[in-house]
Amino acid sequence: MKKNTNKLKPIGCKNVKIQNRNSFWGKRLQQLREYIVPYQWKVLNDEIPGVPKSHAVENFRIAAGLSTGEFYGMVFQDSDVAKWIEATSYCLIDQYDSALERLLIEVVELIIKAQQPDGYLDTCFIIKEPEKRWANLRDNHELYSAGHMIEAAIAHYQATEKTHFFQAILRLTDHISSKFGLEENKRKGYPGHPEIEMALIKLFRLNQDPRYLKLAEYFINERGKKPEYFELEAEERGEKKPAWPFWSHEYCQVHLPVREQKEAVGHTVRAMYLYSAMADLGYETQEEAMIETCKALWEDVTQRKMYITGGIGSSAFGEAFSIGYDLPPDRAYAETCASIGLVFWAKRMLHLELDNKYADVMEKALYNGILSGISLNGMKYFYANPLGVWPDVCKIRSDLSHIQPTRQPWFDCACCPPNLARLFGSIGQYIYSHDEETISVHLFIESNVSIQIRGQTIFLKQETKYPWDGEITLHIQTNISSEFTLMIRIPGWCKQAELSINSKKIDISGLIEKGYIKLKRIWNNDDHIELSISIPVTLVRAHPNIRSLAGKVAVCKGPIVYCLEEIDNGPNLAQISLPKDINFTPQSGEEKMFKDVVVLHGIGLRSKSSSPNNQLYRTEDYSQEEIPIKMVPYYTWNNRGIGEMTIWVREV
Amino acid sequence: MKKNTNKLKPIGCKNVKIQNRNSFWGKRLQQLREYIVPYQWKVLNDEIPGVPKSHAVENFRIAAGLSTGEFYGMVFQDSDVAKWIEATSYCLIDQYDSALERLLIEVVELIIKAQQPDGYLDTCFIIKEPEKRWANLRDNHELYSAGHMIEAAIAHYQATEKTHFFQAILRLTDHISSKFGLEENKRKGYPGHPEIEMALIKLFRLNQDPRYLKLAEYFINERGKKPEYFELEAEERGEKKPAWPFWSHEYCQVHLPVREQKEAVGHTVRAMYLYSAMADLGYETQEEAMIETCKALWEDVTQRKMYITGGIGSSAFGEAFSIGYDLPPDRAYAETCASIGLVFWAKRMLHLELDNKYADVMEKALYNGILSGISLNGMKYFYANPLGVWPDVCKIRSDLSHIQPTRQPWFDCACCPPNLARLFGSIGQYIYSHDEETISVHLFIESNVSIQIRGQTIFLKQETKYPWDGEITLHIQTNISSEFTLMIRIPGWCKQAELSINSKKIDISGLIEKGYIKLKRIWNNDDHIELSISIPVTLVRAHPNIRSLAGKVAVCKGPIVYCLEEIDNGPNLAQISLPKDINFTPQSGEEKMFKDVVVLHGIGLRSKSSSPNNQLYRTEDYSQEEIPIKMVPYYTWNNRGIGEMTIWVREV
Repeated sequence: MKKNTNKLKPIGCKNVKIQNRNSFWGKRLQQLREYIVPYQWKVLNDEIPGVPKSHAVENFRIAAGLSTGEFYGMVFQDSDVAKWIEATSYCLIDQYDSALERLLIEVVELIIKAQQPDGYLDTCFIIKEPEKRWANLRDNHELYSAGHMIEAAIAHYQATEKTHFFQAILRLTDHISSKFGLEENKRKGYPGHPEIEMALIKLFRLNQDPRYLKLAEYFINERGKKPEYFELEAEERGEKKPAWPFWSHEYCQVHLPVREQKEAVGHTVRAMYLYSAMADLGYETQEEAMIETCKALWEDVTQRKMYITGGIGSSAFGEAFSIGYDLPPDRAYAETCASIGLVFWAKRMLHLELDNKYADVMEKALYNGILSGISLNGMKYFYANPLGVWPDVCKIRSDLSHIQPTRQPWFDCACCPPNLARLFGSIGQYIYSHDEETISVHLFIESNVSIQIRGQTIFLKQETKYPWDGEITLHIQTNISSEFTLMIRIPGWCKQAELSINSKKIDISGLIEKGYIKLKRIWNNDDHIELSISIPVTLVRAHPNIRSLAGKVAVCKGPIVYCLEEIDNGPNLAQISLPKDINFTPQSGEEKMFKDVVVLHGIGLRSKSSSPNNQLYRTEDYSQEEIPIKMVPYYTWNNRGIGEMTIWVREV
Repeated sequence: MKKNTNKLKPIGCKNVKIQNRNSFWGKRLQQLREYIVPYQWKVLNDEIPGVPKSHAVENFRIAAGLSTGEFYGMVFQDSDVAKWIEATSYCLIDQYDSALERLLIEVVELIIKAQQPDGYLDTCFIIKEPEKRWANLRDNHELYSAGHMIEAAIAHYQATEKTHFFQAILRLTDHISSKFGLEENKRKGYPGHPEIEMALIKLFRLNQDPRYLKLAEYFINERGKKPEYFELEAEERGEKKPAWPFWSHEYCQVHLPVREQKEAVGHTVRAMYLYSAMADLGYETQEEAMIETCKALWEDVTQRKMYITGGIGSSAFGEAFSIGYDLPPDRAYAETCASIGLVFWAKRMLHLELDNKYADVMEKALYNGILSGISLNGMKYFYANPLGVWPDVCKIRSDLSHIQPTRQPWFDCACCPPNLARLFGSIGQYIYSHDEETISVHLFIESNVSIQIRGQTIFLKQETKYPWDGEITLHIQTNISSEFTLMIRIPGWCKQAELSINSKKIDISGLIEKGYIKLKRIWNNDDHIELSISIPVTLVRAHPNIRSLAGKVAVCKGPIVYCLEEIDNGPNLAQISLPKDINFTPQSGEEKMFKDVVVLHGIGLRSKSSSPNNQLYRTEDYSQEEIPIKMVPYYTWNNRGIGEMTIWVREV
């Protein structure tokens, strides 16, 4: 195990501010505070009629003895509340809000009351089956929910500086630590759904207590060993086989010890959370085998199993990866949470290896497969994010039963909405990293950041309308001129970029290392850097092994993937094709709903049948008619009613 | 109800002979006798190791008290034996065979022994649940199996002229008649899976006993009435809901009274058997409402819900029709039995209305979606017949779990193999029809037929190598010159046909009625007709509403649909495209396995990625490389190992 003492580090959640409420993410943060978080609180309290019952807060009331009734919901229903606390805490860090603080005080008190004297905290097993605590790690998600509680407690502590919730969750963590581990008096368990590993390493980073790193390491390393813990505990329960038809060792990523897992398999969210934790552990230990495993898995996922939207999981059965290149656009599962997990992982990979390939995927998932999971008004959600939809068949085909052709107000399994909320709340943490000598800029998001470089505070102000245009300005503020390196990402899709420092153009051709412009110099107060990235509209093709995309193109502009919608282009989008030399005119401010969004206009072709009758099969050829077409960012689809949508279009 | 006293009639099974064992169907009949029927007998007797257990004959032994043990198999396991008897009887009619006759004697004796004193006959409920007889018509298939027994008994009687089995089955029919009907002492039941209706009308046509027509009529007319019988009997059983997740009123076609059913829905085989029986009833009664319903359903199936192969059912869930134009090629269910049912129905529609559209579909299903269901050696079978297969994904995708990428030796639900056998055995019955003035030739199959026209026996000898070429000769033999009309089908896809009578060319342009050349004249002994149908290779496009086929073509030559196979064209068939002006060279005698089969050679294009690396998504365009391609008849696919296959190919 070699130690890297000057590792690239994430930026603390309080160091980044996204203040401009007219900027892309500034607006989302405002929406988070004003609409998303209050809406989700009401849903969690069952205050919105017609929305699937949550009962998540009521479960805590019952567990706390403040209400009577039965536990209701998924076995991991508590995690919805934890994720909401995390998101709301980030809102408070972003901007103090007394109403939200009151809600946090209320819910945190409730959770502490529900916690058992020994530290245990899971309302399902407090209320419903206390005798079954820790009896089924494979299925019961207690460690998963605990992980979310830890993340919630850390964010809550950072937001409020109050320690009571944090201390309570440390008691839960200690309780878990007393149950599981390699020591003789402990069980050799690990979670069916990873999450707690990431949370424990976050905890370790906060308080430097090595017990938390050790517990995370134990959970990761124990996974996949034989005899398999899940089989042992199933035997203890007298179970013959798992209750879920889709369960397999691969489903939970316990088929191999983690360092031997070189191909991504199974449930995509579990995989993302595991791989993120593995990257975290690799970062802390700098163990080469672990880092190489993470890199191999990254290549497998992003070069064989990822949709162009950053969506992952093309198999609805088990919400899982399929084999490489099996990426049918209309049957995509591409769960919103899986793309969120991909962003978690990408950020961690950046800290193992500064390479724009990680940031490119992070950005792709963010602006496409994740943003598509939430309506423009913030209050309706997709669980699965297909790349093409014909709503009429979604209603009847069982192989499309996972596809909702319109966003939903909530779900029985409601993991995605509060996961989106906490990601939005923490978006600032994805923009920059730093070490003792370097500040890295991964994402182009209007923001301010303060970073400690060798004891010196550097302020960086980023101004940009990205992704709608490619002009980015970085202003440096520093009390003392100081030498450090700025690493600024050039996206992999970018063919042309220009950079000036203090209005003087710099030749960057020799300065690019793994997709980052390296600017090492003595920086002075008021230095400013102008980066201009060319973001033309491009036609993107798929790897030839993706059978379902042969002969098709996607239209992209920078990180934004575009789609055709029926409302703009009429029904039967399959009949539309794009000439190779199509010229798109970007336009913004077109519709109220799309005020700041750049849409694309062009002349495409629509096949017209020359068959004189309505025969199902005919020898007559199609003719092609020029038609105006309009494409909108994929993430904005289905905000104007139900209709057909497609990303991939035939190329002629 | 208007009566048509001179209706087009089917030809009796003994009147057609397919004697040339080198002809397309002559070879199949020989294979039926030599391989298929003996192989299936062994399977039904569990004499072939490694093949899914049938137990079908053993069930009869147990029911007859000749063996002990439990019933095993599907609730309709008996029908496999019945279909085998029917097929074997046709073999005997075709050519006497003492070994097959001995097997028939043996199995028929066994069945008669198993029959209960009251006439009841269903081994599942004789052995396993005698108290549940007739208690669940919705699910239990007793009437379905009885229908197959009736068809078996008719064929057996026709083949052997022995009446003991026939009489036994009449007792079964009388037993059923005593249980179900409109009379006060009878239950208002009807079958969950239609079949007995067709069988009863066949029985009526044989012995003219109006009770059988009446019972069939009752079963058909009662269907879809409210209160629904299936709900009443479920209530009697104390059942809350059907045991099958896919059950619905539409699934069983009981959602509406039959005359109100204008759209094909639900389980395709049930639909085909019901619509066939409705056409039979419409034929017998000449009731306009029923005939119009059949025609409306025909248009819906063949113009909105049928694959180019004559396969039907694009939804694996419930083995069912989807909505119109939802015909994804790779997820096709297209059960072999459903296409067989389509042939049953088509033949019956021809007797309601002589129109080549019915014969065209009959032929399309026969040479594609049905023949694909059986290997060239006759002993392996497809249940589902997809139009495109990528074997690697069939193994992993649950939405393709119904797709076997290679034919199987048998199935747990083994309806298709013996259904193929009885269709092959009765193929002669699909070639011709006649009435008092007319002989119609629907199919071009080398054969001899004797037909009574106004008391005069006409012999017709058809010589042809169709479908491999379009030369058809009809020789007339008659003792006395006699006036009658010959109606000879010109397939709908045929753009050019020439006809000579006694070597003198006839202008047929004014003689065609609904796709049949009408030749009314006094025919003399030794008259001969030469029909020459042009069968070029054509590119066929799909209706624009079939989203999944946009931009694609199928290659057809006459009734034969062609496909690309990996063994001939390399892996990744999706990268192949066909130029609009592609020129195919038909060739036969190329491989031992394909000795008589015409394969097609041409120059197609293969997309080559110009991307310098292996990126999953890239802006680089594909280049096109000319490659030799080979296409084989779809029905011959997967006879040379497992590999990719596709019918629909991109057109450039």
